[in-house]
Amino acid sequence: MLKVEHIGIAVKSLDVSIPLFEKLLNTPCYKKEEVASENVLTAFFQQGESKIELLEATAPESAIAKYLDKKGEGMHHIAFEVADIYAEMERLKSEGFILLSETPKKGADNKLICFVHPKNTNGVLIEICQEIR
Amino acid sequence: MLKVEHIGIAVKSLDVSIPLFEKLLNTPCYKKEEVASENVLTAFFQQGESKIELLEATAPESAIAKYLDKKGEGMHHIAFEVADIYAEMERLKSEGFILLSETPKKGADNKLICFVHPKNTNGVLIEICQEIR
Repeated sequence: MLKVEHIGIAVKSLDVSIPLFEKLLNTPCYKKEEVASENVLTAFFQQGESKIELLEATAPESAIAKYLDKKGEGMHHIAFEVADIYAEMERLKSEGFILLSETPKKGADNKLICFVHPKNTNGVLIEICQEIR
Repeated sequence: MLKVEHIGIAVKSLDVSIPLFEKLLNTPCYKKEEVASENVLTAFFQQGESKIELLEATAPESAIAKYLDKKGEGMHHIAFEVADIYAEMERLKSEGFILLSETPKKGADNKLICFVHPKNTNGVLIEICQEIR
């Protein structure tokens, strides 16, 4: 793992939470992006080499909608940048971790992504991601 | 805010979770430290410019013990490094955020720290911290 690429935070409304996080972090939201395949709208804030990613659901079947129903707003996942997502997926599987997809998916921010099942990571949802080159 | 200094994760047992996170992050735990005033044992892993901090309670009155009882293991807080914690506390108060202490406290890893109440930050417990010089 190279660095914390971003921390994902589930929110009910970007319209409410973008100005809130702009005040909290003292930095502007520099990008909004829809990931239609995941039914989410995302908003990004830079903090050093990492980002804060706010996530709003756009449909009831979105993983974020289900998360909000079950746990309410709050930290949703930690994403680590990796140099080679395919090699890292193999390494994690060989260590006994369970991946939530067999192949990387296209995520926000021009990334290939894969999630690790939180039941084997102390309840923390981990994403690994790699820039699409 | 300068960067994500660390992400705090509440765990039941460092003895279980340190080897787990060493495998997950593919990097060794480089430090364990007790913060007696907060009734926690901490363990650190470096990831780029940020750290992952595992937190185990050492007493039932620890905030981590209460968190585990209520929510189980998982992400507990995000800590941002700031250049001047006193100035940042004033800025946050002037923006309407509620601080959990009037003055900075001594935290792990040679830091002055202050928490922001999560009820005004979409349920995310935010820590600001500054290296003690």
